[in-house]
Amino acid sequence: MSVKVEIINIGDEIVSGEILNTNGFTLAQSLSSAGYEVIAITTIGDDKSLIKVSLDTALRRADFLIVTGGLGPTIDDRTNEAVADALNLPLIPNPDVLEYMRAYLKEKGLKPEYEKMVLIPKGAEPIGLEFRACGFKLIYENKYLYFLPGVPDQMAKILRHQVMPELSSTFPGVSSKITTTLNAFGLDEVQIASRMRDILRSFPNVKILSLPQFPEIRLLLSSRDSNELDIVKKKIKERLGLYIFGEGDETLPVVVGRLLRLRGLKIATAESITGGLISDLITNVPGSSEYFERGVIAYSNRAKTEILNVPQRAIDEEGAVSEVVARYMAEGIKRIAKTDLGIAVTGYAGPTAGPEARVGTVYIGLSAPQGTKVKMYFFEESRERIKLLTATNALDWIRRYCLDDTFIYSN
Amino acid sequence: MSVKVEIINIGDEIVSGEILNTNGFTLAQSLSSAGYEVIAITTIGDDKSLIKVSLDTALRRADFLIVTGGLGPTIDDRTNEAVADALNLPLIPNPDVLEYMRAYLKEKGLKPEYEKMVLIPKGAEPIGLEFRACGFKLIYENKYLYFLPGVPDQMAKILRHQVMPELSSTFPGVSSKITTTLNAFGLDEVQIASRMRDILRSFPNVKILSLPQFPEIRLLLSSRDSNELDIVKKKIKERLGLYIFGEGDETLPVVVGRLLRLRGLKIATAESITGGLISDLITNVPGSSEYFERGVIAYSNRAKTEILNVPQRAIDEEGAVSEVVARYMAEGIKRIAKTDLGIAVTGYAGPTAGPEARVGTVYIGLSAPQGTKVKMYFFEESRERIKLLTATNALDWIRRYCLDDTFIYSN
Repeated sequence: MSVKVEIINIGDEIVSGEILNTNGFTLAQSLSSAGYEVIAITTIGDDKSLIKVSLDTALRRADFLIVTGGLGPTIDDRTNEAVADALNLPLIPNPDVLEYMRAYLKEKGLKPEYEKMVLIPKGAEPIGLEFRACGFKLIYENKYLYFLPGVPDQMAKILRHQVMPELSSTFPGVSSKITTTLNAFGLDEVQIASRMRDILRSFPNVKILSLPQFPEIRLLLSSRDSNELDIVKKKIKERLGLYIFGEGDETLPVVVGRLLRLRGLKIATAESITGGLISDLITNVPGSSEYFERGVIAYSNRAKTEILNVPQRAIDEEGAVSEVVARYMAEGIKRIAKTDLGIAVTGYAGPTAGPEARVGTVYIGLSAPQGTKVKMYFFEESRERIKLLTATNALDWIRRYCLDDTFIYSN
Repeated sequence: MSVKVEIINIGDEIVSGEILNTNGFTLAQSLSSAGYEVIAITTIGDDKSLIKVSLDTALRRADFLIVTGGLGPTIDDRTNEAVADALNLPLIPNPDVLEYMRAYLKEKGLKPEYEKMVLIPKGAEPIGLEFRACGFKLIYENKYLYFLPGVPDQMAKILRHQVMPELSSTFPGVSSKITTTLNAFGLDEVQIASRMRDILRSFPNVKILSLPQFPEIRLLLSSRDSNELDIVKKKIKERLGLYIFGEGDETLPVVVGRLLRLRGLKIATAESITGGLISDLITNVPGSSEYFERGVIAYSNRAKTEILNVPQRAIDEEGAVSEVVARYMAEGIKRIAKTDLGIAVTGYAGPTAGPEARVGTVYIGLSAPQGTKVKMYFFEESRERIKLLTATNALDWIRRYCLDDTFIYSN
């Protein structure tokens, strides 16, 4: 059973881009995951004729409507009048709202100038008074219309405690969608899409969204059939193999932390180009002190030689951004920190570079008991993105090593 | 002269609340501050008939339209077809897009299966190819229609570098609002509002929005009167004093970098709780290698004693999270890096803490030629927010020291 809903968010401050429309997002999220089909989210200013048109359009295609904003006491707030106009209903003072408003104004020591808020369309029922808001709902031509305040906190409370429970008794046949997320790194959207194409074709009832979150990609799978969802998930995991690093909310640093703990390995970092980003990501994970021993940001050449014992000669002959320096850094940090693993990165994030390599050149080194692996990358991106790509690849190296320590011998 | 625009954002992932519609916000903000009147922001799924209806409605009331999303290579992406349908234009392959796509697919080693992206409505002109995106624009019944990709980064770049300049030559009569931004740290929204109240009352034509970007607050001032704007800006800067750290796009690390360079000072970092976040922020700034010498992430106690020469006794007696250890760390990193300044942080970000201090306890230390200052903070926030608050305060210490080196003696 498909029940359709439209969301209308009213407010000059939203269309003018002064504030982000979080109400639309909260509503879309809550309604969609409860199984309702959100057709459209329309954002308009406090303009009577636009409100009228939007209501008309929405009423034609949705089973129920949720409208936020424009219910306040100021002259900008025109939702009540627009609704009365659009639905051809008179505005009448509501005794419950009146009682609430009188108490409220008295409490605040304000003059009774907010009378306009007590006028709601005939047949409407006030909602949200217990959350200090003057919303209302009404049934019009068998459609359910909810008018909620624009203040996000109030809106969210009324939605959760009043509207959602009411909807589920009004539309008892609606079943929530089941969703699951796979997190990928190392392939781009197009590469992922081309590898999944036949799976998608065979299971048309499972919907897959790919959401890029640079440099990672989240694959959001949803279906009403949990069996099919499981099959598709399994197939995609097989197909994408090690490119899938986690599920759900799992971030790459969380996965890396779990694997290091599982394997009983400790790590230390020697960063140049990333300037501390790798260790920052690692230490965002609660409990990381169990496997992260220390980090060194050897930004200057002097730091590379003094702390990590990179030979000055190697820097002079090959340059700070070179395979040999990355190797010395990885082996150096492993040795001085007495950890199982040492990960190192050196490169040029721009805007300037040294004579030995161009901006975007990066070397990653991983030193492990089995040996040291070093590889060159070239990233054609902005400074911050080069840093993030480098750090993410370094974390991915650690993950892949933990899963299979022959990684150290791979290309 | 009022020029009206409608924004249509297309994407199943937006109506279903899976991702926040940041494109709508970016567009509303840019267009509105450039002086265009944003009538509506409509968000719909990848549904041909809804796209058609929304285009029809928008074309009736706006002078130009900006549509995002649904241009990709997957079968979900239906914008091109829907546009062709709605405007009754045939889809024809565009030679420029074809050439771009062939090069792209070759580079990625993919089969030529994305031909659909090269089909754009007859008369349309491709845009965004230089940003690796296949958007297009067309003029229909004297209305300007821009179709941009849904990926926020690409969308924002094309908007800024191509669409906005074109619009300003298409609609030369539109006068933009003049806006300016002041960036504050160290006061909360309510504190800032109460300090600015009388200024706001005296200048009703200047609008001020405070946009919290944890842990900083951006104050967005706008007016059509540049004189008034300048006066208000000056008054707010006077009133908030050192709490304003920068203007416009200036981030705190950029300001810190500028001041360190101006004063000819070099710095090194010794981080525990922040795990590299301070140095990561510092090194996000191009040219930071001129003033950032090195960083140490002394996460373990062994790292604190071995690299920074914090006496083991100090850790045993006072705990790793203590004033004395923060002092040793700041002085240690300054000494070993031979820099002018050493900044150090130690604390507990949670979920666990040691016996000497609760989660949220942080010590910041700054060692300078004049001496060493250490201060305790307590942040009641999540792990990542505690890290960010600590790092931001540390950067703010460096800024305040550079502006006035008696900061080292202040409380």
